[in-house]
Amino acid sequence: MLYLIGLGLAYPEDITVRGLNAVKKCSRVYLEHYTSILMNSTQEELETFYEKKVTLADREMVESGCEEIMADADKLDVAFLVVGDVFGATTHTDLVLRCKQRNIPVEVIHNASIMNAAGACGLQLYNFGQTISMVFFTDSWKPDSWYDKVLENRKIGLHTLVLLDIKVKEPNLESMARGRIVYEPPRYMSIAQCCKQLLEVEETRSLEAYTPNTPCVAISRLGSNKQKFKSGTIKELSEYDSGEPLHSLVILGRQVHELELEYLLEFTDNKESFIKNVKADQEYFKPAPWVPPNQDDDC
Amino acid sequence: MLYLIGLGLAYPEDITVRGLNAVKKCSRVYLEHYTSILMNSTQEELETFYEKKVTLADREMVESGCEEIMADADKLDVAFLVVGDVFGATTHTDLVLRCKQRNIPVEVIHNASIMNAAGACGLQLYNFGQTISMVFFTDSWKPDSWYDKVLENRKIGLHTLVLLDIKVKEPNLESMARGRIVYEPPRYMSIAQCCKQLLEVEETRSLEAYTPNTPCVAISRLGSNKQKFKSGTIKELSEYDSGEPLHSLVILGRQVHELELEYLLEFTDNKESFIKNVKADQEYFKPAPWVPPNQDDDC
Repeated sequence: MLYLIGLGLAYPEDITVRGLNAVKKCSRVYLEHYTSILMNSTQEELETFYEKKVTLADREMVESGCEEIMADADKLDVAFLVVGDVFGATTHTDLVLRCKQRNIPVEVIHNASIMNAAGACGLQLYNFGQTISMVFFTDSWKPDSWYDKVLENRKIGLHTLVLLDIKVKEPNLESMARGRIVYEPPRYMSIAQCCKQLLEVEETRSLEAYTPNTPCVAISRLGSNKQKFKSGTIKELSEYDSGEPLHSLVILGRQVHELELEYLLEFTDNKESFIKNVKADQEYFKPAPWVPPNQDDDC
Repeated sequence: MLYLIGLGLAYPEDITVRGLNAVKKCSRVYLEHYTSILMNSTQEELETFYEKKVTLADREMVESGCEEIMADADKLDVAFLVVGDVFGATTHTDLVLRCKQRNIPVEVIHNASIMNAAGACGLQLYNFGQTISMVFFTDSWKPDSWYDKVLENRKIGLHTLVLLDIKVKEPNLESMARGRIVYEPPRYMSIAQCCKQLLEVEETRSLEAYTPNTPCVAISRLGSNKQKFKSGTIKELSEYDSGEPLHSLVILGRQVHELELEYLLEFTDNKESFIKNVKADQEYFKPAPWVPPNQDDDC
């Protein structure tokens, strides 16, 4: 049996009791270690907690076929641990498909992920639109296909969850050119950098998917004892010191109810200006700029 | 301290280790018992597992101010357990706000909810739009505001998660009129009933937010040992026997990738016709029927 087990957000003890029981009986335990990190625990702490050796599975191991992970999983119990929930990344769906093709039984044990725990910021989950990822820009590479998605979400009033890039095990390119593999130190995008990149792309795209005054909520270290929320405009948050990783951002949509606003105001420095910006944003995107469905013969 | 603890989806052991440790030290334990149910466990099984008495909190107790739950929570540890994750329902956000106003410390311990675990059907979570709820229609009450949301989602290619109504503790109206409170037996909406109501509303609204041939995935008993997925059109699923509760439905959007389709095909009776319907749906909603952002001066 291959167990795919979500670890939740921060602590070794965030695993479910059922998940822990499964890990305890496994012959081999792998930890997916490139799409996220478990904030409040090291590999050693996990090994102590599980009383098991834990092998880190980097992108190469997982995406190059998972042969090592699946080996003998039709006869032995093997655990593949994923920070957050199991189906956050496409590659894990792929792993399940490969197992099915080989008649390896799979059991999934779910857990919290940023995709649902983000509701802790006070915004209702059912008003979120599609989720986007913000990668580290370089001088020559500034992908912005997410910009259209933000615009689509905001046109229909929905919030946008922005997942911030992490680089856990990136080879140093200079060393690679000299034939040696040396890994860069891990990097985690800050709220400020994300907001600066948002502003940079709005400068070039200029469709007003958002403005410097668009209200957002920064979510830092969600689920840990250092969890922190901060409400503010993109401009304000582009100067915010968000501290240690991990971070996510929510760009608000028009659909903010009184109760949600009251909750967000707990986390803002300037309540009056935040309310003003929320109202202005609601006004801008309402009424909806496209033809209402009941007069739209084209759809 | 008031602990708000997600229970996950099915088993008593789906609680996290951290959640269980918190419950064990609480003086009082409440289980929110009207927005969902824990599929594979009774109140008695939870009490045995926690070695604690568990009080069921119905809608009335939670929405009428939560006084009983918050009593002395500034001095004692109290647990409020929620099936799935904590922030699925607006009332729980309200409970946190009330605690803040009274200086009662709150700690949230997250878990899986249908909002993220739905990824188990093979569709990528970041392509989901706003979530809708389908309530039981009566002869005189057929709310359909969700219809516009499905149309909005599908216009921009997004999947729609449909949460199906449950009635856990509804008073019998005839008895109430006679001054006695008698509760109806619990009711859980089936996939077939949900699909019939979808078709009924499309008949009256007629904007082709979807058609009888729109592809969907039925998700039944997610996270339990009787978990089952079934891919098919709305028409096909309107005759599907989905078995025991709980159920959810995903109405597919245009954004279905090859890997996702391959996954969904595992769960369909007629692969060829399912592929045909997915392709037809993709064709219908592509190119997007509204003016592309870069020619849209009104937004």
